[in-house]
Amino acid sequence: MSAIIDYIETNKEKFKDELFNLLRIPSISTDSSHKDDVRKAAGFLKEQLEDLDMDRVELFETDGNPIVYGELITDESKPTVLVYGHYDVQPPDPRELWDTPPFEPTVRHGDIYARGASDDKGQSFTHIKALEAYRKTDTDFPVNVKFILEGEEEIGSPHLVPFIKEHKEMLACDMVLISDTAMFAEDTPSITYGLRGLAYMEVEVTGPNRDLHSGVYGGAVENPANALCEIIAKLKDGDGVIQIDGFYDDVVELSDEDREAYKNLPFDLEKYKKDLGLKKVYGEKGYSTLERATARPTLDVNGLWSGYQGEGAKTVLPSKAGAKVSMRLVPNQDPNKIAQLFKKHVESIAPDTVEIEIRAHHGGHPAGTDLSFYGLQAAADAFEEVYDKEPLFSREGGSIPIVADFEKVLGAQSILMGFGLNSDAIHSPNEKFALKDFYRGIQTSAKFFEQLPKHSK
Amino acid sequence: MSAIIDYIETNKEKFKDELFNLLRIPSISTDSSHKDDVRKAAGFLKEQLEDLDMDRVELFETDGNPIVYGELITDESKPTVLVYGHYDVQPPDPRELWDTPPFEPTVRHGDIYARGASDDKGQSFTHIKALEAYRKTDTDFPVNVKFILEGEEEIGSPHLVPFIKEHKEMLACDMVLISDTAMFAEDTPSITYGLRGLAYMEVEVTGPNRDLHSGVYGGAVENPANALCEIIAKLKDGDGVIQIDGFYDDVVELSDEDREAYKNLPFDLEKYKKDLGLKKVYGEKGYSTLERATARPTLDVNGLWSGYQGEGAKTVLPSKAGAKVSMRLVPNQDPNKIAQLFKKHVESIAPDTVEIEIRAHHGGHPAGTDLSFYGLQAAADAFEEVYDKEPLFSREGGSIPIVADFEKVLGAQSILMGFGLNSDAIHSPNEKFALKDFYRGIQTSAKFFEQLPKHSK
Repeated sequence: MSAIIDYIETNKEKFKDELFNLLRIPSISTDSSHKDDVRKAAGFLKEQLEDLDMDRVELFETDGNPIVYGELITDESKPTVLVYGHYDVQPPDPRELWDTPPFEPTVRHGDIYARGASDDKGQSFTHIKALEAYRKTDTDFPVNVKFILEGEEEIGSPHLVPFIKEHKEMLACDMVLISDTAMFAEDTPSITYGLRGLAYMEVEVTGPNRDLHSGVYGGAVENPANALCEIIAKLKDGDGVIQIDGFYDDVVELSDEDREAYKNLPFDLEKYKKDLGLKKVYGEKGYSTLERATARPTLDVNGLWSGYQGEGAKTVLPSKAGAKVSMRLVPNQDPNKIAQLFKKHVESIAPDTVEIEIRAHHGGHPAGTDLSFYGLQAAADAFEEVYDKEPLFSREGGSIPIVADFEKVLGAQSILMGFGLNSDAIHSPNEKFALKDFYRGIQTSAKFFEQLPKHSK
Repeated sequence: MSAIIDYIETNKEKFKDELFNLLRIPSISTDSSHKDDVRKAAGFLKEQLEDLDMDRVELFETDGNPIVYGELITDESKPTVLVYGHYDVQPPDPRELWDTPPFEPTVRHGDIYARGASDDKGQSFTHIKALEAYRKTDTDFPVNVKFILEGEEEIGSPHLVPFIKEHKEMLACDMVLISDTAMFAEDTPSITYGLRGLAYMEVEVTGPNRDLHSGVYGGAVENPANALCEIIAKLKDGDGVIQIDGFYDDVVELSDEDREAYKNLPFDLEKYKKDLGLKKVYGEKGYSTLERATARPTLDVNGLWSGYQGEGAKTVLPSKAGAKVSMRLVPNQDPNKIAQLFKKHVESIAPDTVEIEIRAHHGGHPAGTDLSFYGLQAAADAFEEVYDKEPLFSREGGSIPIVADFEKVLGAQSILMGFGLNSDAIHSPNEKFALKDFYRGIQTSAKFFEQLPKHSK
């Protein structure tokens, strides 16, 4: 193992330079004008894997962006780890709020600033570099490993589930390793054992058949923007309780044990408020901030638009108004059922003076990993060796829908080994990833592969 | 009078050619690259007035576009009419939707197609040509007349109010004559005796200090877009009644006579709905569509924005959400007072989990002309003589802020003698003005000047 640790230590600059090359590619999957960049990022990763003398490296075409696959089978009797990551990124908008350009990575105060630094190029790159440390030092790799790196995570992975269904045998594994989550706090390694699901809807309200003059028609014609606001306002009550009929029917309530465990997690509410610039937190009555953010379902407007958004005043009564509304789900809510309930409810409360169109975007199931699973124990040991601290076990508020899919299709639980921080500003301007956690991530991954066979009996 | 009527009849082609010359000048006030064209249009009108042997014609410079002024004082004891018009026009965009170029006037099916044909070059030109008919036939002009023609109406007349305040004596008059409105329907002369005012607000709600991941923070942090929707939803109740404290305090309720007059106006609700593509009209309970559109105050969202508006899904909990909200006002509401009430009310209902900023854009006072005013009676007689029909008296839903300013500064009521039609597509592609109404407008103006002294006792 010391050869590996030495290799990692010696090659830090090289690892950083390579990650920077990956971060420079604006692989924004939601923006079709960046299609070639997305493909370029896939090619970059394929070359990275090809350099590791694996048994097989292949770029699989899909109807969308390609999937990069690599495998190294050392001994069929040993555990097989499927490493999942994604090389696509969120759009960088609003660009003007970035202190340095989103696709020109820079290090400031020990943090790498770039779109994708944390989510997920930087985090997923750690496992490739960990494998490299074994291969380039001619150290026997202690388990079998397969990589599956996709380019559509930020748009809901539309082609990944069909792909894993179609390649069940090739992808067969004992567990999935994913680094796409955050540590509980700085220098506080954490293993996420629960994730929320997602239902993402778009609502479009149409009033008159064209934009009208608000002086000539105002008061006599329903304004779709006002109507949309009324609809959205009715979706929650004053206690933050979602008003969609049947919304909570399948929710697994927090047990007393769960709530006790939450109380033991280190959490500083004042720091949280200060970090976010809040005078007051918000949320469902009867739950703590951590519970609200990770174990309770939500309903948030993600986007809103209508009429004139420019400078000054334009007296328009808009023809249309739209909103993107997403709901985070907890075990055992089903995203398809929730999407249906949302649609039915919104249609039932929409005024009959407007037309309403409701579309569902991608969704994802909530997921959980069994706390006694040996993979989790190996991950805990690896974290402790590198960070010199026992990791915390916690739930996260975000969604990695693919975790539920891996479980359903491959029967494999996921190890969510996050190296990021909640303050990484993923999906926001000035996304960052601590350089030291990039390096510790590579070390932890290497240790995890070493630990795994010891726990697998 | 017959000499005048003959003159108008004989010179129709000349009038049309002159108007076409004016329409060919792209005097777009909002586009600084057309500054010289705006000035050219002013010069054209100055020459027109100079040709009429008036007592005084002058081009007044302002910090913006010039004001063309002309006066003819025949007898101090007679009524003085101040004719107001504007020679600037809206931009023609989108140009590709014009069937013929916006600044190459053409006649099709009896309509003049050009930007400014109706708003307001064509309409205001009628009064110059009416005066010409008197002057070129050596007919004594029956009243005193002053012209004030501005070039900034389409950008909110920023220099006109200071100008009239500064030239109160020069502009002293008994009434203002404005042709910048529409007739109720084709061949249906109408006199507008009420205009709504305007208070235009912008609301910005700030939640967290940056855009957040809706998975990580959703449920625990107030979403400013949800909060904005709740605020806007609370501004009206289910009956369309505005809920701002004190909002209706100064509203002059419709009298029984007013409401009776409304019932007599020709209005086809089915046609209205069909034209706008509405399955159902909307509005304040207890009022008809026409009353709602012209005699009742309103509250409309003119613009709405937050978070991600692009294609697909982005799971953002936005930092900010904003709305433009305007209120149309009726006599005796005061736009400044209403802006204050709006601000106070919105601040009082905003949740304490967000910051809120409220700004007022430009406003305008509502205006009304006393139905018993002798000027209105003279205008009615003139219309009846030319159109062979008693004109309708109606209110309009839009605002002409300058009408309230003329009343406040000069103490003069306005006669809104519209020759346009609501279907003229002012501010839209393919603006038009019926050629026959251009000619009838000249005749009506000439008759009006003749009638006025008879009613002024």
